[in-house]
Amino acid sequence: MSVIDDLAAEFAKLPGIGRKTALRLTYHLLKQSPDQSRRLAGALEALVARVRRCSVCNNLTEQDPCALCTDPRRDQGLLCVVEDASDIGAIERAGEFRGLYHVLGGRLSPLDGVGPEDLAIQSLVDRVSNGAGTGAGAGAGAGCAVSIAAG
Amino acid sequence: MSVIDDLAAEFAKLPGIGRKTALRLTYHLLKQSPDQSRRLAGALEALVARVRRCSVCNNLTEQDPCALCTDPRRDQGLLCVVEDASDIGAIERAGEFRGLYHVLGGRLSPLDGVGPEDLAIQSLVDRVSNGAGTGAGAGAGAGCAVSIAAG
Repeated sequence: MSVIDDLAAEFAKLPGIGRKTALRLTYHLLKQSPDQSRRLAGALEALVARVRRCSVCNNLTEQDPCALCTDPRRDQGLLCVVEDASDIGAIERAGEFRGLYHVLGGRLSPLDGVGPEDLAIQSLVDRVSNGAGTGAGAGAGAGCAVSIAAG
Repeated sequence: MSVIDDLAAEFAKLPGIGRKTALRLTYHLLKQSPDQSRRLAGALEALVARVRRCSVCNNLTEQDPCALCTDPRRDQGLLCVVEDASDIGAIERAGEFRGLYHVLGGRLSPLDGVGPEDLAIQSLVDRVSNGAGTGAGAGAGAGCAVSIAAG
């Protein structure tokens, strides 16, 4: 298999990219400066090498704990539970929520064999037991302020 | 800028991929095995390192002259002139044409400042002068058998 077919096959593994589009992207890159392909390759390698899960909230991050968990200006008494790390970006862009996040990493789906043990639910329970999302940071005492963002 | 944003920005430079799709592709890769990102990065680097222009027909190839130009079973007396290397794949898949190709690398567009000197036209003239596409290979003598595939 030629490297052109090889790259097209890799592009075609991405969601929403069929075989024709994959070939179009490959030929597009061949027409551009080699630097563009190198930058894309470098960004992919950096992603693999540097992005990991935050040990506190399960968000994808380059530093652990992540920038959101370590931001002292955020309300420690509010937890927004999201399905996926990508949901955080959407909520942050809205600019309204100033609490912390907890990323479940999926949602319960018994038919697909996804149970509680496959999601970051125990770490959520632990965080809430330790005072996160209980409104303690907001001085509200015992009221649970965990909010669930539906996907 | 985080490596997540960085990769999304690189994806968004590709044609037909907007900012949202670029982020979706990035998060998709983060959910897959790191091997998938590494294979995509490797294929991009191989593309840059190994693909070059065929010195005969201007096709994109890993060997020079390309596999089409060096295939003895192809009719040396027929030349199909195409705008772009990607056009060859489409014609080859149809399986009807058994001659050789010549890739112009674009088309004349005076308004965009693309003139004959920007395309592989002189090398086409040289090839035809040297007997390619003149039907000589097919034993047809002097009849010019150059065909132009419109983009």
